[in-house]
Amino acid sequence: MTGTALTFDAEAYGLSTGHLIVPEGVDCEALSLPVFSLNKGDGPRLLITGGNHGNELEGPIVARRLVEWLPEAQTCGRVIIAPEINPLAVQAWTRNTPLDGKNLNRVFPGRADGSVSERIADAVTRVLLPMADIVFDLHSFAPTWNCAPSVVMHPVADAELMARTVRMAEAFKLPVTLVWDYHDTAGMFDIVAQNQGKVFVCSEFGGGTVSADALAVYEAGVHNALIALGLVEGKAEHPIFRQRQSTRTLKTLSSDELQSPARGIFEPRCSILDEVKQGDLVGVLHPLESLSGGAVDIYAPTTSFIYAVRSGGYVESDEELIYFARPLKL
Amino acid sequence: MTGTALTFDAEAYGLSTGHLIVPEGVDCEALSLPVFSLNKGDGPRLLITGGNHGNELEGPIVARRLVEWLPEAQTCGRVIIAPEINPLAVQAWTRNTPLDGKNLNRVFPGRADGSVSERIADAVTRVLLPMADIVFDLHSFAPTWNCAPSVVMHPVADAELMARTVRMAEAFKLPVTLVWDYHDTAGMFDIVAQNQGKVFVCSEFGGGTVSADALAVYEAGVHNALIALGLVEGKAEHPIFRQRQSTRTLKTLSSDELQSPARGIFEPRCSILDEVKQGDLVGVLHPLESLSGGAVDIYAPTTSFIYAVRSGGYVESDEELIYFARPLKL
Repeated sequence: MTGTALTFDAEAYGLSTGHLIVPEGVDCEALSLPVFSLNKGDGPRLLITGGNHGNELEGPIVARRLVEWLPEAQTCGRVIIAPEINPLAVQAWTRNTPLDGKNLNRVFPGRADGSVSERIADAVTRVLLPMADIVFDLHSFAPTWNCAPSVVMHPVADAELMARTVRMAEAFKLPVTLVWDYHDTAGMFDIVAQNQGKVFVCSEFGGGTVSADALAVYEAGVHNALIALGLVEGKAEHPIFRQRQSTRTLKTLSSDELQSPARGIFEPRCSILDEVKQGDLVGVLHPLESLSGGAVDIYAPTTSFIYAVRSGGYVESDEELIYFARPLKL
Repeated sequence: MTGTALTFDAEAYGLSTGHLIVPEGVDCEALSLPVFSLNKGDGPRLLITGGNHGNELEGPIVARRLVEWLPEAQTCGRVIIAPEINPLAVQAWTRNTPLDGKNLNRVFPGRADGSVSERIADAVTRVLLPMADIVFDLHSFAPTWNCAPSVVMHPVADAELMARTVRMAEAFKLPVTLVWDYHDTAGMFDIVAQNQGKVFVCSEFGGGTVSADALAVYEAGVHNALIALGLVEGKAEHPIFRQRQSTRTLKTLSSDELQSPARGIFEPRCSILDEVKQGDLVGVLHPLESLSGGAVDIYAPTTSFIYAVRSGGYVESDEELIYFARPLKL
């Protein structure tokens, strides 16, 4: 446990700042992760983390924007903000941590004597997580995807916690609230937090380019959630995305993942938030060597909404191309 | 010269297909690049190339879409389409060719006895280029940029060719026609073509994700240009981009490139096609280690339009952040 600590008193009233120290290990020196504590006394205890994956930069930017205006706007409670929990990956613009090749969001709760990703997870789990009852982990999708602005959670066994988490996710008022029945959740930050009874949601957004427009929608979602928690005053409004203001609560199953039938250039023929019917053309695959007639049409396997679409690009056989989603009935 | 050739007769009437053979060299086997010839007799002679840079996939996709509908729509002339002139880079999703690390668009006219990028450039220059009087090279910007849908050219010394090239670029009716006074044009495909008196334009678009919406705008631009050339019938219309239908002819100077004042996370505060005044806030740089007050505001150095904005992300000091542009007066 030696060495893992905050360098400042997060209980102090008002804005206080310092670092979360991730101790040195065999692979690198100690890391100092910037942490901001915004304490206005009794009320909700919220932790906001960004930069879990280093090529998802909306989160760190929105987290740092919050630090600018939240100290003045906040009326109660405490918000701990750690804008970049994986600075090594942020600097490298990579999903995984370059030093150990690990996905930080698959090694929670981490290990104090592990590699650097595991030591980060351990420090976040032991020092930051106990300071909050609610967690917003600000992600994006991957840079080679288009994904609906959304708040995502995985199914929670505890029905009461599940309902509270869905309500928290819906409070962002982003176009999609998604319950994702994902097959690969071992080691995720949310599982560790939910096992401690905490409300944990991930914002997802993008991917690809991080534009001023996208950041405005993302920040509006977080602002709405802060209003819903009673941390700031104001009226929550649906941000405008693609000229619409809407929210849908959807679910995605593991079987809702469409994979490429071959290698080649994927041409998307559908857009995020589209409603498609079973059999609709949703993409075309162009094998590079094709001279004619070689293009492979790709059809929607089920009537559904388009949650995320692989950006047009070269794909290998069996790579994921599209994630479908359908209405959630709780 | 041995070995560099088309495997088919591009003079045959109608649609004919085959390969451009790039001979083997010390670094790899011979490459076979798919080529489509759409010959409807007398009329304009157009060459369309895509995949010059391997991480710019709009071009190859639009080129392959053309092959689907152009044979029926075309009324005269001949169009040669080479959708992916650098398949090695396309497969690797890289700007430069992985085998020799070279930027194909900096080694024209190439060398028959050079490395693979130079051999590709040589084959394109000696076999494809002589078959056309007009060239559309379908690019995008880089994946970490937002860039206005545009047709770009570099200044041409010959005033008559310059005027013809600007008119060709404007015929796409994309939001921006740009004359870019770029400092690093040695070895570019367009310089070689223009030195032979040919009209050569580059479409640029993106970057980031290649979506169905983006592809529709891109293809509409190419369609407009085909109408202007008289190759197909129809009425050219401005594609809708960001709820607007407009075209501006702009120029960018080398001094219109804004660089990062430090390393950190770049937050864009402007969007492509915005009109900004000198001194407007256009971005914020957040150093990773910053705890407060460390953010650096970035202002527009000149009254101008935003042509391209670096996607929010981690940048090094002196990396390009924004390209400005101003109205062109011919």
